[in-house]
Amino acid sequence: FLLHSETARRLYHDYAKNLPIIDYHNHLPPNEIAEDKIFSNISKVWLNGDHYKWRAMRTCGVNEKFITGDATDEQKFEKWAETVPYTMRNPLYHWTHLELQRYFDEHRLLKPDTATSIFETTSKKLNSPEYSTQNLLRKMNVEVVCTTDDPTDNLYSHKLLALSFEPSRDGSKLKANSSRLKMLPSFRPDKFILIDAPTFLGSIEKLGKLIGSDINTIDDLLNGLKQRADFFASLGCKLSDHGLEHLYAEDFTDATANKAFQKAREGKILTDKEANVFKSCMLHHLGVMYYNLGWTQQFHLGALRNNNKRALSQLGADTGWDSIGDFKQAQALSKFLNMLEENNALAKTIIYNLNPSDNEIFGTMIGNFNDGSMVGKVQWGSAWWFLDQKDGMTKQINALSNMGMLSQFVGMLTDSRSFLSFPRHEYFRRLLCNLFGDDVTHGELPNDIEWLGKLTQDICYYNAKRYFGF
Amino acid sequence: FLLHSETARRLYHDYAKNLPIIDYHNHLPPNEIAEDKIFSNISKVWLNGDHYKWRAMRTCGVNEKFITGDATDEQKFEKWAETVPYTMRNPLYHWTHLELQRYFDEHRLLKPDTATSIFETTSKKLNSPEYSTQNLLRKMNVEVVCTTDDPTDNLYSHKLLALSFEPSRDGSKLKANSSRLKMLPSFRPDKFILIDAPTFLGSIEKLGKLIGSDINTIDDLLNGLKQRADFFASLGCKLSDHGLEHLYAEDFTDATANKAFQKAREGKILTDKEANVFKSCMLHHLGVMYYNLGWTQQFHLGALRNNNKRALSQLGADTGWDSIGDFKQAQALSKFLNMLEENNALAKTIIYNLNPSDNEIFGTMIGNFNDGSMVGKVQWGSAWWFLDQKDGMTKQINALSNMGMLSQFVGMLTDSRSFLSFPRHEYFRRLLCNLFGDDVTHGELPNDIEWLGKLTQDICYYNAKRYFGF
Amino acid sequence: FLLHSETARRLYHDYAKNLPIIDYHNHLPPNEIAEDKIFSNISKVWLNGDHYKWRAMRTCGVNEKFITGDATDEQKFEKWAETVPYTMRNPLYHWTHLELQRYFDEHRLLKPDTATSIFETTSKKLNSPEYSTQNLLRKMNVEVVCTTDDPTDNLYSHKLLALSFEPSRDGSKLKANSSRLKMLPSFRPDKFILIDAPTFLGSIEKLGKLIGSDINTIDDLLNGLKQRADFFASLGCKLSDHGLEHLYAEDFTDATANKAFQKAREGKILTDKEANVFKSCMLHHLGVMYYNLGWTQQFHLGALRNNNKRALSQLGADTGWDSIGDFKQAQALSKFLNMLEENNALAKTIIYNLNPSDNEIFGTMIGNFNDGSMVGKVQWGSAWWFLDQKDGMTKQINALSNMGMLSQFVGMLTDSRSFLSFPRHEYFRRLLCNLFGDDVTHGELPNDIEWLGKLTQDICYYNAKRYFGF
Repeated sequence: FLLHSETARRLYHDYAKNLPIIDYHNHLPPNEIAEDKIFSNISKVWLNGDHYKWRAMRTCGVNEKFITGDATDEQKFEKWAETVPYTMRNPLYHWTHLELQRYFDEHRLLKPDTATSIFETTSKKLNSPEYSTQNLLRKMNVEVVCTTDDPTDNLYSHKLLALSFEPSRDGSKLKANSSRLKMLPSFRPDKFILIDAPTFLGSIEKLGKLIGSDINTIDDLLNGLKQRADFFASLGCKLSDHGLEHLYAEDFTDATANKAFQKAREGKILTDKEANVFKSCMLHHLGVMYYNLGWTQQFHLGALRNNNKRALSQLGADTGWDSIGDFKQAQALSKFLNMLEENNALAKTIIYNLNPSDNEIFGTMIGNFNDGSMVGKVQWGSAWWFLDQKDGMTKQINALSNMGMLSQFVGMLTDSRSFLSFPRHEYFRRLLCNLFGDDVTHGELPNDIEWLGKLTQDICYYNAKRYFGF
Repeated sequence: FLLHSETARRLYHDYAKNLPIIDYHNHLPPNEIAEDKIFSNISKVWLNGDHYKWRAMRTCGVNEKFITGDATDEQKFEKWAETVPYTMRNPLYHWTHLELQRYFDEHRLLKPDTATSIFETTSKKLNSPEYSTQNLLRKMNVEVVCTTDDPTDNLYSHKLLALSFEPSRDGSKLKANSSRLKMLPSFRPDKFILIDAPTFLGSIEKLGKLIGSDINTIDDLLNGLKQRADFFASLGCKLSDHGLEHLYAEDFTDATANKAFQKAREGKILTDKEANVFKSCMLHHLGVMYYNLGWTQQFHLGALRNNNKRALSQLGADTGWDSIGDFKQAQALSKFLNMLEENNALAKTIIYNLNPSDNEIFGTMIGNFNDGSMVGKVQWGSAWWFLDQKDGMTKQINALSNMGMLSQFVGMLTDSRSFLSFPRHEYFRRLLCNLFGDDVTHGELPNDIEWLGKLTQDICYYNAKRYFGF
Repeated sequence: FLLHSETARRLYHDYAKNLPIIDYHNHLPPNEIAEDKIFSNISKVWLNGDHYKWRAMRTCGVNEKFITGDATDEQKFEKWAETVPYTMRNPLYHWTHLELQRYFDEHRLLKPDTATSIFETTSKKLNSPEYSTQNLLRKMNVEVVCTTDDPTDNLYSHKLLALSFEPSRDGSKLKANSSRLKMLPSFRPDKFILIDAPTFLGSIEKLGKLIGSDINTIDDLLNGLKQRADFFASLGCKLSDHGLEHLYAEDFTDATANKAFQKAREGKILTDKEANVFKSCMLHHLGVMYYNLGWTQQFHLGALRNNNKRALSQLGADTGWDSIGDFKQAQALSKFLNMLEENNALAKTIIYNLNPSDNEIFGTMIGNFNDGSMVGKVQWGSAWWFLDQKDGMTKQINALSNMGMLSQFVGMLTDSRSFLSFPRHEYFRRLLCNLFGDDVTHGELPNDIEWLGKLTQDICYYNAKRYFGF
């Protein structure tokens, strides 16, 4: 599958396949990992919360009752099984069957006449400790997962998991430790930046309560976030993450930004310029903070969110009403990174674009700030969300190859909310090996399997391990 | 041709090839269909009005005299024959020879030394009833054509054609009816929306005369258009169409829009904002009207028209001086669709982009408004105009596959002014079958010819039939 | 290499390979050609000034000392040799080895363990007259090179080279003349247009001194540039070139533009609008001047330059800190070209885009101004800079094929600062032949090797020769 040449097959099977997985950015629920949750059936772990599948079902005319409504898990699964044959050529089709195979050893195609049987056999398996969340991750050889967390989160689950494997406790744990699963938090403070969002003031208040002092100025706010970041760092956090339409790099002073903050606190509507000044100021100071902490900052740019207000009000955010925007990216991104660079405070950085028309902008932007101080300091992140499929990944890998240095790429991540998404790493690895294989076939790369094997292993595992310092 | 695998060939020949054609959007001249026109030679039906060919000839240095000027039809054909060998790799090269083969059984390549002979043999054929406009359509197995009509059009030709086949008239007609060609009008009211165009006030006046009452307010205007739309509906109209640089979704009230309308009526220049308010208001109310009529609304977005003013003033619009723009699309498109959705008045909608850099925006936008209420309610239209070629169609099909549900696609249309363009449906069908075939070859789709055959037939015919309700 | 079919191989070897090279746009240093410079080692001719290689080395964590710093040439070459294996899939990998093969007959892969030996053997070769700059060009069968020159340049080197081959001088020169290398200047006056750049006033002053009269008005400025352009023309100049973020086509009068000019002369900051008016005015008048001179005007559009200010201040411009922008292109480009067209003063024009997302805009824009007056008057230039690689060139060629007339394309140029870049013409030719070959293999082009050979030769050589009038 996806390996069309002998070289591709050798690279995948001899070099890539057995490497552990570092999933350095995802949206897994930490508590479900810490408590080693067991799911009672496949709908619970596979359909719940998966807005990719929901969009497909809705496009096929499936009623919301069977998607997020009060239908039974079995009914929902049936509707999904009816939809699957219509998803041909969509990544869902490959994902669906890869996931059934890799987790459940289920090799039948999912369709109406296999639905009941597959629901039963998979649910039976899921109902055993072998299919607990931690074991689902272990089954995929996952070494590290970095979750995405609110700065006000108490990270209880992260502490719990770390403790439960503390080697000091007893010998058996020590042993477990050898295949130990690391779950690390990531810091995602967008709520404190998006000053024009309705959640802004509430978030500020919550943070104030948590740190036990009023947040009256932008300095208070940055101090509060610094306290939380230090706490995150103490639990092994190595990454921050931002999800924005585009970067903000308006000229600002702390005073003008603070003025905008005061205006927002008084409940007044800010001008676009004022909001941008505040956002630019916050992002810059946070960038400096990440640099001082030795973290990697991530920016996911370009989504156009919450397009369908009616659906949004009924079902909430992240339920399948987002799409790809056409925001201008290049100039603000350049200015933002440059401002940090000029202050000697540019952290390791990964930029991700959602619109593939921006591929070459991102692919060339990173080169402006790779200054020889370390290997691949500024990275262009893997194809993401709507682009997380064969064509999207191929385009990102090819553009990165042509515009930058594929060999130094930190590689794949799931960005997923699901415990069953980890075969996407396999998908990526196969695809990468296949591209190398095609190049060898066409005489465009030398048939040096050892060197290609080394590059493959770097991209699939070692670059990330070294880059993040896990 | 275009079928590189056994699966592709089976899908095309056993499933796709013999299906009728539903050409749900084109610019054919209704009167030439109704009167069953016969063309005296191939230049008249093939070169006249075909700005694709004109652009190619001009780029090859052919003088305008031989393109739109007073040269003889035979001279023009000669110049075209000289140009054809230079069109290699342009879609014109494939279209030219497919059309010669499919309509005229002419299998020689067109070039200077075959020009005279091909001109003669094709003209001879054209001069017979077998090659009348209706028979040209029948030859291609065309079931429905939807023309594009001005709201003030009296639709005389549509009535005439419908009547001429009225089964009540006589037995032979009844028989003819079994292979009956449906020609339906489509409603294209852009002239009444583009308030800053020089044609605006004249169009308003014309509409007022037609409905027999003055158009003094925006309400009068909407009422007038409603009368015309009802008349269109009475003749079987199921679609509207708009050709815009981008959608307009400025905040408006009927009062502010009416104020802009009054200002325009007084001959004053509107600000951009005023013009946008008016356009946004009109488009929204028309959208509600389409919803109430049960129509499908189409939006062709992104052309940059009339770039060469000198040529335009000499030859008029639609003579080959248009190109692809880089307008922002996503936010206004989202806001426009959402406003209708929030009012429970979002009609079936097809959005078409001209700039392929917007492919992924359009491919993901539709998912925001497919809410399970029907199958594929909001569609991303087939690759259009400059994109109506192998690469453009492939990219649209692949992006739609990856971002949405190819299986629910309503498929191809010609968008053409020519009676000889219908092999483009064959081209699309071959390409689609070939993509499925390649996927099977590469092990990326199961080799389930029946299911793939069903999906192919859906996309080529049945989805459109069901979607539009023909 | 890059020739995957028998047709491709025949086209390349029998038709394309032996044609001379017309490199109608590059950044070679004229003095190094005129003085027939000999390089003491490969680092001097291959690493010095090559910011493509520098970016790759920096991304691999190489310290600036070994890139632009005070390390020895041998040390720098070693660092480059360490980097090369990591450039796999980047065009640098192919270029590196093609250049070693074609110039030095060196067929080993460059890597740490071949570095010393390759440094020595190539340096030895370089140290002989056979590897002088002129002979390096002759080795590649270069017929014409067009350098890129400042309007205030005295073009001493161009005169010198022209004189040195003057056939009147002696018989042996007359013989040399048969394989004579033409070096022609190109006119690049951006410094006199970019009114908001810090170099503007200094450039004006320099020009004033050169022409011996004060430049007080925009008329003076245009007159001064006209004098220089006439001088350039007297030395065979046939092209101008502009490197801009996008075209400027603000409405202007000479008076408003002159007002902006006066304001700039007084050292005041211009508004964006004022600057744009000035730029638009200058570009238009220069366009008219180019038309009157019978030149071809070139526009390289879309770079986002000097992103890393710290590096820029240390190393200067053009040292690897540029990337791809997302400027709006279509409307200003159209308006600019149209204004010249309406004044009957549109010169032959080549437009180049740096962002491949603009491919289809550029590919269709040219058709708006190809009016039959000559073959391929307005051209879409070859894939450039970051796009000058297999994927980038393929996309440009395919989009040009689909949107315009590949057959009339003036083809490849190096745009390079290096004497060793000329195998890029070979790369382009192979790629072009391979695309034709694939089309024949797939039955999408007739297997008419003579006609395809003719088209290939036109695109590789004859179109440019005819178009520029060399």
